[in-house]
Order: sequence, then structure tokens, then C-alpha cells
Amino acid sequence: MKKIGIFTSGGDAPGMNANIRAVVRYALLKGIEVVGIEDGYSGMIEGRFVKLSRAATANIISLGGTILLTSRCKAFHSVGGRAAAADRLKQEGIEGLVACGGDGTFHGAHALWTEHGIPVVGTPGTIDNDLWGTDWTIGYDTAINTAAWAIDRIRDTALSHGRVFIIEVMGRHAGFIAMDVGIACGAEYIAVPETVSNIDLLYKKILEQGKNKRTIIIVGEGDEIGGASVFKTILKEQFDVDSHVTILGHIQRGGSPTVRDRVLATRLGVAAVDALINGKSDIMIGLTNKEISYTKFEETWARRKSLRDDIIFISETL
Amino acid sequence: MKKIGIFTSGGDAPGMNANIRAVVRYALLKGIEVVGIEDGYSGMIEGRFVKLSRAATANIISLGGTILLTSRCKAFHSVGGRAAAADRLKQEGIEGLVACGGDGTFHGAHALWTEHGIPVVGTPGTIDNDLWGTDWTIGYDTAINTAAWAIDRIRDTALSHGRVFIIEVMGRHAGFIAMDVGIACGAEYIAVPETVSNIDLLYKKILEQGKNKRTIIIVGEGDEIGGASVFKTILKEQFDVDSHVTILGHIQRGGSPTVRDRVLATRLGVAAVDALINGKSDIMIGLTNKEISYTKFEETWARRKSLRDDIIFISETL
Amino acid sequence: MKKIGIFTSGGDAPGMNANIRAVVRYALLKGIEVVGIEDGYSGMIEGRFVKLSRAATANIISLGGTILLTSRCKAFHSVGGRAAAADRLKQEGIEGLVACGGDGTFHGAHALWTEHGIPVVGTPGTIDNDLWGTDWTIGYDTAINTAAWAIDRIRDTALSHGRVFIIEVMGRHAGFIAMDVGIACGAEYIAVPETVSNIDLLYKKILEQGKNKRTIIIVGEGDEIGGASVFKTILKEQFDVDSHVTILGHIQRGGSPTVRDRVLATRLGVAAVDALINGKSDIMIGLTNKEISYTKFEETWARRKSLRDDIIFISETL
Amino acid sequence: MKKIGIFTSGGDAPGMNANIRAVVRYALLKGIEVVGIEDGYSGMIEGRFVKLSRAATANIISLGGTILLTSRCKAFHSVGGRAAAADRLKQEGIEGLVACGGDGTFHGAHALWTEHGIPVVGTPGTIDNDLWGTDWTIGYDTAINTAAWAIDRIRDTALSHGRVFIIEVMGRHAGFIAMDVGIACGAEYIAVPETVSNIDLLYKKILEQGKNKRTIIIVGEGDEIGGASVFKTILKEQFDVDSHVTILGHIQRGGSPTVRDRVLATRLGVAAVDALINGKSDIMIGLTNKEISYTKFEETWARRKSLRDDIIFISETL
Repeated sequence: MKKIGIFTSGGDAPGMNANIRAVVRYALLKGIEVVGIEDGYSGMIEGRFVKLSRAATANIISLGGTILLTSRCKAFHSVGGRAAAADRLKQEGIEGLVACGGDGTFHGAHALWTEHGIPVVGTPGTIDNDLWGTDWTIGYDTAINTAAWAIDRIRDTALSHGRVFIIEVMGRHAGFIAMDVGIACGAEYIAVPETVSNIDLLYKKILEQGKNKRTIIIVGEGDEIGGASVFKTILKEQFDVDSHVTILGHIQRGGSPTVRDRVLATRLGVAAVDALINGKSDIMIGLTNKEISYTKFEETWARRKSLRDDIIFISETL
Repeated sequence: MKKIGIFTSGGDAPGMNANIRAVVRYALLKGIEVVGIEDGYSGMIEGRFVKLSRAATANIISLGGTILLTSRCKAFHSVGGRAAAADRLKQEGIEGLVACGGDGTFHGAHALWTEHGIPVVGTPGTIDNDLWGTDWTIGYDTAINTAAWAIDRIRDTALSHGRVFIIEVMGRHAGFIAMDVGIACGAEYIAVPETVSNIDLLYKKILEQGKNKRTIIIVGEGDEIGGASVFKTILKEQFDVDSHVTILGHIQRGGSPTVRDRVLATRLGVAAVDALINGKSDIMIGLTNKEISYTKFEETWARRKSLRDDIIFISETL
Repeated sequence: MKKIGIFTSGGDAPGMNANIRAVVRYALLKGIEVVGIEDGYSGMIEGRFVKLSRAATANIISLGGTILLTSRCKAFHSVGGRAAAADRLKQEGIEGLVACGGDGTFHGAHALWTEHGIPVVGTPGTIDNDLWGTDWTIGYDTAINTAAWAIDRIRDTALSHGRVFIIEVMGRHAGFIAMDVGIACGAEYIAVPETVSNIDLLYKKILEQGKNKRTIIIVGEGDEIGGASVFKTILKEQFDVDSHVTILGHIQRGGSPTVRDRVLATRLGVAAVDALINGKSDIMIGLTNKEISYTKFEETWARRKSLRDDIIFISETL
Repeated sequence: MKKIGIFTSGGDAPGMNANIRAVVRYALLKGIEVVGIEDGYSGMIEGRFVKLSRAATANIISLGGTILLTSRCKAFHSVGGRAAAADRLKQEGIEGLVACGGDGTFHGAHALWTEHGIPVVGTPGTIDNDLWGTDWTIGYDTAINTAAWAIDRIRDTALSHGRVFIIEVMGRHAGFIAMDVGIACGAEYIAVPETVSNIDLLYKKILEQGKNKRTIIIVGEGDEIGGASVFKTILKEQFDVDSHVTILGHIQRGGSPTVRDRVLATRLGVAAVDALINGKSDIMIGLTNKEISYTKFEETWARRKSLRDDIIFISETL
């Protein structure tokens, strides 16, 4: 293997740069040239390739976002788009790819492998932690700490005013962020997509606090009720409880990665290059029980990581 | 003067606790007892008084929110409510008050003085910086740094994706937060209540960035267009530009105060006690050109601090 | 079981308060009264007990340090000291203990169990991560992020000036902090107690950077060379390299705990109470491969967790 | 004026990049080309010039350190060194300079003007705030907040253990950092170069806290006693008080600048270019009572800003 490519795709996540850095530096150490592909699959189709040296990855380990940029690319959903991308890669002499992203990214990578035989290994780069095959995704640890930082601030006001706050956090279809952040911030109620919301329990919790005391309700994006503003309406209409809504939004995606995200991204980057060298493809590199693990792309989205029962229990009782 | 009261009222602001601490410790040093009044004017009417010792204010200088709690009190808007409060204060033997809050707080304090002769001096406790008579209000410095922290994070995503972000910050009817934060975060466009928005200039700025590059637009609460979501609609309908909206909301109120807010709150607290001792009333203590200044309550809301022209110029050009 | 005690001992660690909160709230849920013992073993001997209600643990989940205070207690090293403590506990009707701390704490707890039959379970509260029987100790995740935060700042200066910086981090006899932080901050060289330092490799790394470029060297407390200042002397005397030393010190112990530390502390606190209820004693509760694990106190200090080979490899190459 | 140069020199300070950005963007707006000079006076002598475009200064407003690098240059202390630099500047066609740094930087700039007639205006870039002619220097606000952040962490441990901590902060010969940070962190004692230390008062403060309670002592670099470790020795030998020393060191120099530092650096950068255009030289641009002010270089180091009496009073009493 003489030359590989790396790209980031889908939503950006803190730690993607640390992943790029590890792939580049370890590959160079192994005598493999590395090409960065800009803007994910868009740049692949358009041939926006840039050679990455060791120096090009200096001082990026602590940066949020991704220096290779990222996008969601519709053209890659078509057979023709993927064929164009494959041609570009072959012209450039790229013999293998590292794809950092989420399940959308891995769908594309899987198609590239099955249709064009281009070896691709993935690294899990998403703040949502919603991929089967790894205990943690790159960016998740930073996102939960950023969210907790924000909620700790809102709690200052909630305490000073005795107010009910409904805070919506990210997570797409998975409640990991909501659950970890909710427990960490001592939320009175946590709504996640995985469970049916219990409005009566919620109201009971509000009463326990006293109508004039602070109550923090965390709502995970994608919960079945329909988001923080629906909760607000229900509380007002059914129980005459006033509340304030805050949607944390994109601040959860940014920021300098935590130590765990940087170290995770580094370990997975090294392992991804090793996997390509060893002839592997169509798999995601993950970390499972502290060890590097390999999961077929198809399994990463077909199987669903569930919330732990003991965590749900804690969220409902403490 | 043997005994004074202190309370916080209106929206909470970081540094209120540092203000309470300074008032208590300096008054005790001067041989004056200090009573904390809980929940602002509500607690005054209800007689929720608590004696404050030096130990009670240990380790609160770095805490956000207010240990005395705060609220907006409708009952105090009536003559009867204020009379009830005045009775409570007299029963308790309180000979003077320190009121930490914004213009609503000072309206109440002014009425208490004119109707019942109870000496009150105010300290400017609001994140909005919208009070005449002081260069900075307590909480403002923390709020702008918290907002900038959040926007720096959103910029990571904006850069990685090449997206237009519209971020709404607090400020009520004043553009101070929007202006300082917008300049500090290198925003391409800043909309404030003080000026008429120029949508064509905004569009020009977006084009300068390139339709696929990051553009950060900061919208101050109370701008005449109607908030971040109206901007989003205009950009889409008039120019077919897609954008993402984030409303920072209550995270801007919380958090451990910055050094300047702690020091400001401390200096103003000491000066407030001195003012009461010297027989002053009906005034707000401020900091003007590094010196303690005194402004009649009525002026604090009647006169309007304006944005500096050189700041507006910078916001439009750099 | 009607009444249990909880205490923190040894060096303080972020997340101890979250652990206390979980123990108190879960025990109360199970109908068990909880007594807080102040200042660790000192307070146990002196009978400084305080009843802990649910309300007493409100809003402490995000606080650094420990509300129960902590100390290192010489008197407890004697048979008489422990007998006095056991008497106090029996007088108070305490039927079991949760001990949050490190190996010193567990030595004491083990003695209390073997000599006086008082059931004790431990939770690993130390920033050093140096206890066998758990993947992570409470406080470790916060400490590495605090250290990385500080080193990212020093790197700004190192980059601007082209300087060599030697930064000493905590860890006692274990290199976990140094290794994780060193990798996360892209350090050129990491010295840990577990391995023999290779000064020639270090000098080679410095030359690779260029004598006028920034070089970051992380030295773990307890490394065999003797700390950051010895490295400075060696670099100067052997290679005529100037360098700056920073010893991070106690800032690594403090701060609001990270989400993982808060969640870990909460899970371990619940499991500790369950263990006492189930008649267990003389064990530490840990988290191993995402599951609650139980390790005899004696093993926690007799066996040694080692650094992973792949982590050491990464630290030497990337 | 067709072309100007900008450089940073001496110790780096957060906000230097914001200053560079403002100078570049405003000069370009005025039709003036801008050349960045690397490594301060060293790069000036060696002709290390780089043309700065608007794009080159994108996204640097939030970065610590300085993209132009900085150094202390001995060669520039000689007449010959300065002559060599002047030749380089003239060859390059540079008609004026903006120098961002402290008094050492301004000494050099003054010599360049008097000996070679090259117009130079300075912007105050130093964390120490020790320049006459400006209320605040660029970097000071960030440094005090970083130091307070660190001390708040140490306080967690001090509170949990009941320990005496002696913390040394930066400031060279000025006590501004020590004073602001000490007040903001509620320190029991603050030692600064401007005043004679009163060891008996210090001991009295320690006793007030109780020998087993936390005491925070802040020592400003350059105090007349000789630094934190001397205080430690005195406390032990004279009063048998054990204490812990932490020297904050270089973490105080780094980090993303605060809003005030970014806005200050931006305003001063714009004013510096205006001053050059208007034919000014040999002056530092400052901010005095919210307005741009101009101070002759010689005054910036000859006159000494003193600590405010009310601030000293607060530091000794509250």
C-alpha cells in the first residue's frame, strides 16, 4: 500500500482533527502517503485532493471541527456519483480510504467497497454515540461536557428564580447524550427516544421540587413527544406550570475535544491504518471494553446500542 | 446606622453574590448588622429576612446566580404592596437598603424612598449593561464571555460545513452584548436595536464570504426586525440563502463571574454601604471612568447609554 | 440495615460530592438513614457525624472537592485509634460504611473490617487512576482534562516563542495522567514512572522539532529521573538546551467534575449501597468493561494496573 | 502611505492576534499594504517579511499566542543591529510600523524612530498591565481570568483539606494581576511589589481562618519578600504553619482571549493605523477612560501606574 485517502463526512464532531492527525502520522511512519479529501464525498467526486504532511497536522489535535471540512452529499447517493468518485480515487492512485463519520458516511463507504472494490475502513465520528460496534464515538465525550457546561449555567438561573427549565439536547434517534447529561446535571426528568415519556411522573417530580423551586427537564432530540416546546405546552395546558425552553443546538458540536476524545481518535486512527495495511475493508474500527474492535459497516447501522437499564433506573430515581 | 438590608431583584446576573458578600463584610466592619431579604420585593412584603454573618458569605464570590434568590414581584407595583413592605422593614429595624438589580428594581426602590422615606441605594446588577450612570453593570462581562464561548463553538461547525449561522444573544432593548460579542467573534454582520438593519449590506457580506463559506450573524434581542428567525426567513425568501438559527438563551445568565465582575461587584458593594452611612439615598452606585459615581435612580432609566460610534464603525467594516 | 455512614479520605478528587449524593439518595430510597463523617478518619475518631438528608445533597453534583472534607489521619494508623473510631460508629448505630478514597483509605477500611467487623465498601476516589479493580477512578477524567486545558495554554506560548517546555503532572507512582495528557496534547516526549527514560530519544525529538521550535515534554510525578527540574538540568548540561519548567500542582485536583466523573461516581455510589445491603464488605466497587465489579481491598493495592502497550507505542511515535 | 509593517515582540499575550487582524484589515480598507515581520526584532534584522492578506487573518481573533511569533532580541540592543533592521525595512518599502508589546518593545521602537526616522506606533501587548498610558493592556484581562480559574480550582482542595496555599502569579514589577485576582478569589492575603509585606497581618489572617481552615495567599511575582517559597519558609519558621506552594507560571500567558481583550486589541489596532496615516510616531496607543489616548513611548516606561488606594483597602479588609 503506497497511498491512502482520508475524509470526514456528515455532521462535524470534536476529535475529527485528532483522528486525521493520527492517520496521517502513523501512515507516514509506515511509508504510506496520505491524501486529504475535502468536504467528504463532494470533494471525492470533484477530485479536491490535498497531500498531507506531518507538518500539516501539527497543532490540530486540540482543534474542534475538521480541517478537511465536511458535508452531506446528495450526488453520492446515485450510482453515477459513486462511479465518478471511484474514478477520481483510481486516477489519484489511492489504494484505500479512512472514512470518519456516522452511519450516513458508512453507507457511502460500504457502497464504494461493494460497487468499486475500493478498500474503506471507518472511524466513528459523531457526537451522538449511536453506532453499534464501539463503546464511544469520537466527539461524544466533548459534546456531553459542553452540554453539561451549558446546563450548569442555566441551573444558576433556575435556582435563583425558582423556575422550571426544559432543555433540549442533541442525539438524533439516540438518548445517550440526554441520559448522561441529565444524570450529570441532576435533572429531575429525562426524556429520551428509547422510552415512552411519562408525563404524570414528570408532574410528580415538579411537585416534589415545589412549584416555586428549580426543576430541570432534559429532552433528547428525537423523543417521541416531539421536543422541548411540546413539553412546555403540555405542562402549561395540563398542569398550569410555566416553563422556559432552551434548545442547546450547535454549541454541542464545537469546541476543543476532551482528553478522551483526543486519545480515542488517536487510537482509532492508528488502528484504521493498520487495518488497511492488513487488507481489511468494509468495517468500522471501534473501542469495545478498552480493546480495538472491528464491526462490519452493515452492522453499525442495523444493530442498535441500547441504553443501560441501570442508567435508566438512576435517571428515574435519584 | 445599626442595621441595613440587602436584596437582589429582577433577572439574576453573575456577580450578585460578590456584591452581597462585599456589602455584608464591609457593613460588619463598620459595625452595621446586615439582613438578607429573600426573593427580592416578594420576600420584603412577606418578611422573609435572614441575618447575614461574615461566614454566611464565605466562598460565594465565585458563584453564579444569587444566594438571596430573585423574582419579579407584581404586588410591589401597588401602593399597598409597598406599604406592606415598608412596615416589615420598619418592624425589623432596617434603616437602609442596598438593592442590586436593573431598572425595574430601581423603580421599586425609588418608590420606597419617595413614599416611605426608607433610604435605598442601588447597585447595577444586570447582564444587559443598559443602565445610565455606570460604564459596566455587574454580570455584563461574564455574559459577553459566555456568549463568545458559545459562538466560538458554533464557529467550529460553521467553518467545517460552510454554513450561515444566525445567533441571537440577550440584551433587552440594548445592543451592548450583541456588539461586543459580535466584534469579538469576528461576526460578518451584527444587528442591534439601536440601528436600522441593512439587509442589503448583510447579503453583500454573505456574498463576500462566498455562499459556501461560514458566515456568522449576531442578532441582539430587541432588534427592530424581530429576532433571529425573522432574519432566517428573509434570507431564504429574498436571497435563497439557507441558514441555521441558535438562540443562546439563559446560558448567558449563569456561570462563575469573571474577575472584572467580581471586582466591580466588590467595589460597588463597599461604596453602597458608604453611601448609606453618609446619608445618601435614591441613587445608583456606578463605575464611571474607573471612579465610583452616583446617579439618581430616575436618571438611570430616563437617560440612555448609546453605543459608541467607533464600535459601530468597526462592526460594519472589519 | 438501618443506618450507614459515608466519608471521604486522602487527597480530594472531583466527583466525590457526586458519590456522596448518590449514596445518600439511594440509601434513603431504600429506607436507610445516612450519616456523613467529617474529615475522614479524623472525624470518625472524634465522632464528627452529621445526618444527611436528600436536601443536603441538592446541587452538589457539580461541585469539586468534598463537602464532607478530607484529611490524612495518623491516629488511625494505630490499633487504639481504630478502636476509638469503631466505638464511635457503634454508639452512633452505624451498621456499614462507604469509604471514598484511594489505597490509604482502603488500608484503613480493611483494618476496620478485620479488627472490628464493621462492614465497609469502598469507592475509588483519586485523580491518579492507580487502583487495581476499576477502569477509571472518580476524579481522573476531570484531572486529565484540567491538565490538558493548562498545557494547551502553555502551548500557545511555546509556539509563539519557539521554546522547550517541561511540564510536570500529578500521578504519584502511576503514569496514567502523564500518558493520557501527553498524547492528548501532542507532547513530543512523555516520561512516566513505569518506563525508563530515554534521554537520547528525548534529545532526538527536540532536534526533530528544530532547536527553535516548540517542544512539549510531559513528566509524570514519580518518574525515575526525579521530576521536571532534573530534566531541565540534564537538557542544559548534556545538550545545551534551554527549557522552562511548569509544575501544574494542585489545580489538577479541583474543578467541577466532568460528565463521566459525575456519572461514574453516581453509578458506583448506588452499587456501594446495594453491596452493603447484600452483606458485602472489605471490597472496592469499580467499573470494569462498563459493568460494576467488586475487588477485595487487598487486591486494589497489591496488584498494579499497567499502562497499555499500544498507548506507550503511540506516545513514542506520533 | 502605501505599505506598513506589523510585529509582536517580548512576552506573548492573548489578544495579539486580534490586534494583528485589526491592523491588517483596517489598513487594507485604507488602501495600505501590510507586511508581517516574524519573531519581532530578530525577524526585522533578518528580513523575515510576509505579506498579510485579509484571508490570512481569518479566524485568528480567538487564538492565543501570536501568529507572527515573538522573541527577545539581543542584537537589536546594538546600534548596528538597529541599522541593519532599518535597512531591511527601507528595502522592503515599509513606511511605518505597528509594534505590539511591552516596554522592551517600545524601547526598541523609540530607538528606531530617533536613529532612523522610521515612524512607529505601539500597541500595549503584555499581560502585566504595567504600562503608563492605558487603563488596560492587551492580554491582561485574559491573564487574570485564567489565573482566577486556576485558583478557584486550588480553593476546592484548600476547602476540602483545610490547608494554607501560597499561590504565585505573574506581573513582573507590578501587582495588578495579584491584586485583581486576589480580590476576585477572596484571598486572605495579597502580597504585591508596590507595598511592604506585613507578615504579622498575614499571620493574623491565618489565625482568623483557624489553623485548620483554608487560607489563600496570593503573591505577585516581584514582591519584595522574594516569592512564594520565601513566604512558605517564613510561615514555617516563624509561626510553625504548614503551607503548599503553587507557581501558576506560563498557563497565565495562553488561552483564547476574553471579549474585552479582543475588543480592546481591535480598537487599538484601528487607532494605530489611523495614527500612522496621520503622521504620528514614537507613541503608544492606549485606552483611557473609554477613549483612545496617545502617550509618548518614553512616558510609557518612565511613569508608573499605581495601584488604586481603594483596591488596596479592599484587599486588606474584606
